[in-house]
Amino acid sequence: MNNKIVIIAPDRSLDQWVQALKDENKNLTIEIYPDDTQREETEFILTWRPPAGVFDQYPNLKVIASMGAGVHHIFAQNTIKKHIQVTKIEHPRLATDLSQFVLSICLMHIRDLYAYFKLQQKKKWKPIAYKRPNDTVVGILGFGQIGQSVGELLIKNNFQVLGYSSSSKTHENITTYHSEQQLPQFLQSCDILVCLLPLTSKTRGILNKTLFDQLKPGCYLINVGRGAHLEEDDLLEALQNGQLSGASLDVFTEEPLPQDHAFWDHKRIQITPHMASATDPFVVSEQIIANLERLQQGKAMKNRIDQKREY
Amino acid sequence: MNNKIVIIAPDRSLDQWVQALKDENKNLTIEIYPDDTQREETEFILTWRPPAGVFDQYPNLKVIASMGAGVHHIFAQNTIKKHIQVTKIEHPRLATDLSQFVLSICLMHIRDLYAYFKLQQKKKWKPIAYKRPNDTVVGILGFGQIGQSVGELLIKNNFQVLGYSSSSKTHENITTYHSEQQLPQFLQSCDILVCLLPLTSKTRGILNKTLFDQLKPGCYLINVGRGAHLEEDDLLEALQNGQLSGASLDVFTEEPLPQDHAFWDHKRIQITPHMASATDPFVVSEQIIANLERLQQGKAMKNRIDQKREY
Ligand SMILES: NC(=O)c1ccc[n+]([C@@H]2O[C@H](COP(=O)([O-])OP(=O)(O)OC[C@H]3O[C@@H](n4cnc5c(N)ncnc54)[C@H](OP(=O)(O)O)[C@@H]3O)[C@@H](O)[C@H]2O)c1
Ligand SMILES: NC(=O)c1ccc[n+]([C@@H]2O[C@H](COP(=O)([O-])OP(=O)(O)OC[C@H]3O[C@@H](n4cnc5c(N)ncnc54)[C@H](OP(=O)(O)O)[C@@H]3O)[C@@H](O)[C@H]2O)c1
Repeated sequence: MNNKIVIIAPDRSLDQWVQALKDENKNLTIEIYPDDTQREETEFILTWRPPAGVFDQYPNLKVIASMGAGVHHIFAQNTIKKHIQVTKIEHPRLATDLSQFVLSICLMHIRDLYAYFKLQQKKKWKPIAYKRPNDTVVGILGFGQIGQSVGELLIKNNFQVLGYSSSSKTHENITTYHSEQQLPQFLQSCDILVCLLPLTSKTRGILNKTLFDQLKPGCYLINVGRGAHLEEDDLLEALQNGQLSGASLDVFTEEPLPQDHAFWDHKRIQITPHMASATDPFVVSEQIIANLERLQQGKAMKNRIDQKREY
Repeated sequence: MNNKIVIIAPDRSLDQWVQALKDENKNLTIEIYPDDTQREETEFILTWRPPAGVFDQYPNLKVIASMGAGVHHIFAQNTIKKHIQVTKIEHPRLATDLSQFVLSICLMHIRDLYAYFKLQQKKKWKPIAYKRPNDTVVGILGFGQIGQSVGELLIKNNFQVLGYSSSSKTHENITTYHSEQQLPQFLQSCDILVCLLPLTSKTRGILNKTLFDQLKPGCYLINVGRGAHLEEDDLLEALQNGQLSGASLDVFTEEPLPQDHAFWDHKRIQITPHMASATDPFVVSEQIIANLERLQQGKAMKNRIDQKREY
């Protein structure tokens, strides 16, 4: 049993990751694709956005560990054999950080802080009547681990919260919906809609015209799920016809968002560069090394995802 | 005993106020300065920014009621006779609204949302490492009714909070300071300083070079007290030399802020048009009418301020 991790993450800088993993396990061998050696011996790969077909070069691969909370990137251009265990990161601060980010955006929205930012540039003094959290309904599309944490923080700050998930859930103070039949009822009540779904074949493009048309007119959209949840042209249309009053987007189909993209100078779109939450290698390396050791001991992986569900 | 209120508020629109007061008391006579009559009969004045010397025209005046939480405007250009009772508004939502506003600004600051607005305008994708609430110390200068409510909301959202007031106070979870001897210790710990003082002869111009120099370098200033708390040139200097990293200002010496003011296009100043909290006439008219009735019954005013303290 070897003590080696291969990292496949062509578009990420890896110095911090290498340092953090070594800090956890001094005798660890770390090799970085494409400069890694003896691929037939590699059993454990840590990855972010792996290139197409790359895993086929590793005949004895047992574990593919995502460097983040999402795993969609692993399946995007690769077919993963059934016996390979795919894991995700559970970052203790991820849900907290993301919740605080969503709270910031919700408060910014109801207090019109973005509007004041623009008014200041025009040297215009124009008080706008504000809305209060207790008069504002926030719907969370994807009421999972992070979604629930977001909901709880919003409730603590007096917002009204609704949650929507795949399976039925109950939650104190939060009205929950599930299944496609209940989706319209959920959507029509939202003043703010927060997407926190995982990206799967069922959720790709879910933020589209059909969904927007079911929202309360003037709803505000926050996408902190994945860029591919959103049909970009449908968003532009919904902003144009007033079905949506604005959108805060943290994730995009292509990141960094290309220079010539229409979102950059749209006056009702607020862009943040995928920083709703940041994964700290020094915090999460422990989980990765723990899984490597579990593999060496013949134990099952922690934070393993369900390949059939895709999340 | 008459049933009349005279309103002296030359720079405010009064339709909502008149409506709200009438809703509370159908038989009330409301007259609006300068068109009011029989001034020798007037005992109760409701006011905001009264002109210089105006109260001298009312020989039998008994009560001057402020239309807001602050009363400084009443004393600014008038000497008020000792026997006249001066009252302020206690708006049940004022403290909550103001607290949510301060929370919004604190979150926006640690999440660099203003920086991202600016980066978006330059079509720049540039993630910035964020600070967390639990690593951020917010100092509240003026730890009174509103200051304490702000502090509690910030604590609930994981910020570290310090409070500074005139007299000694104790508070669960919040370290408190008082007296000028303890001011330096308070100031040197703050990552964010929130001014929530009343405007008095002691606090006018308190946000000046001497105070800024005692702050932790790079501190962020939020002024939701009054414009005259701030020495404007000293702020510009402190932003210039980095002693302050930025400032969010809701109140100004002259409101609306004049077109040619240097604050408008300063890249480290965020301007909001005195909307941290809005007084709703329909909520507070009840208090004013109740005090009018107390006067008619020979009872002392509620929410009376201490003329010697000036707040
Ligand atoms: N912007 C960022 O920086 C950032 C950072 C981290 C994560 N994220 C995003 O947040 C997502 C959620 O993370 P998580 O840890 O909360 O995942 P999770 O615990 O697996 O929760 C996913 C939720 O979505 C629901 N769901 C899945 N497919 C659905 C469908 N077709 N229809 C309705 N509901 C569906 C699930 O329902 P059940 O509960 O019934 O299974 C669950 O409630 C991640 O996948 C990632 O896309 C973004
Ligand atoms: N931006 C807005 O929209 C808005 C809206 C409402 C109010 N405000 C501002 O907020 C202010 C505070 O309102 P409030 O209802 O909280 O008043 P408050 O309950 O009277 O509290 C004032 C606080 O300031 C302290 N203080 C007064 N003079 C001081 C001095 N020289 N040095 C140190 N501390 C001093 C007091 O100390 P003690 O406790 O020891 O007396 C008290 O803690 C108002 O006066 C107004 O300027 C702004």
